[in-house]
Amino acid sequence: MSAGFAEPGTKAEIEEGTAFMPRFGADGLITALAVDAATGEILMLAHMNRDALAKTIETGEAWYWSRSRGELWHKGATSGQVQTVVEMRVDCDQDALLLRVRVGGDGGCCHTGRRACFYRAVAVDAVSGRVGLTFVG
Amino acid sequence: MSAGFAEPGTKAEIEEGTAFMPRFGADGLITALAVDAATGEILMLAHMNRDALAKTIETGEAWYWSRSRGELWHKGATSGQVQTVVEMRVDCDQDALLLRVRVGGDGGCCHTGRRACFYRAVAVDAVSGRVGLTFVG
Repeated sequence: MSAGFAEPGTKAEIEEGTAFMPRFGADGLITALAVDAATGEILMLAHMNRDALAKTIETGEAWYWSRSRGELWHKGATSGQVQTVVEMRVDCDQDALLLRVRVGGDGGCCHTGRRACFYRAVAVDAVSGRVGLTFVG
Repeated sequence: MSAGFAEPGTKAEIEEGTAFMPRFGADGLITALAVDAATGEILMLAHMNRDALAKTIETGEAWYWSRSRGELWHKGATSGQVQTVVEMRVDCDQDALLLRVRVGGDGGCCHTGRRACFYRAVAVDAVSGRVGLTFVG
């Protein structure tokens, strides 16, 4: 194991304990949500493997696992949009992480150039009933 | 296919288009984040399969796929904590959903009885360097 997190214990230990037992999926990844610590804006949803999580804790900056590139990803290393972790939380069953971050560089996050990734809403056309997207961000 | 969503297209179509092309993973699931529409509080992170997503759109209430029970899950059906969808967004690469919801019943969400699932923060002990959790929610 590359990073020594505790193995998941009993349901009570996982849900009500103070031991950090991150539950990685069969793909070795845990979901991580990044939120702007100042505004509460939901920035992005990504994934971490054990190494990325360990590096995030060690450095205080968000590291992810890029599924598309298949490599460790220090968010902002090239763009300057480094995410300094103000607080990291874990959910009840310890299979999801919530990071409150301070964003460096131009304050953006999304690779499309937008500030955050959730810039389209799902909308149902009242006439056709067709489900589409509208830009909102 | 049980629910007729468009198949993922080109990168440009996925990221800049108005067609809804939800990208389900190899496990047939897409990540869905529920946020309290009134307060912005991050409530829970769960997953949907095609049926759950279709039912969510059709009914305006959040349906998920319970990975632990292996079944469709109409959130709140037994607890009364139904999540009425005020807005659903999709992220840049269309593999994550963000639901802004109005919560029914007692307004709670987490199966542990708490209002939201992210009630513990990851903390590093200053003396021992040990990584643990502290209750914050």
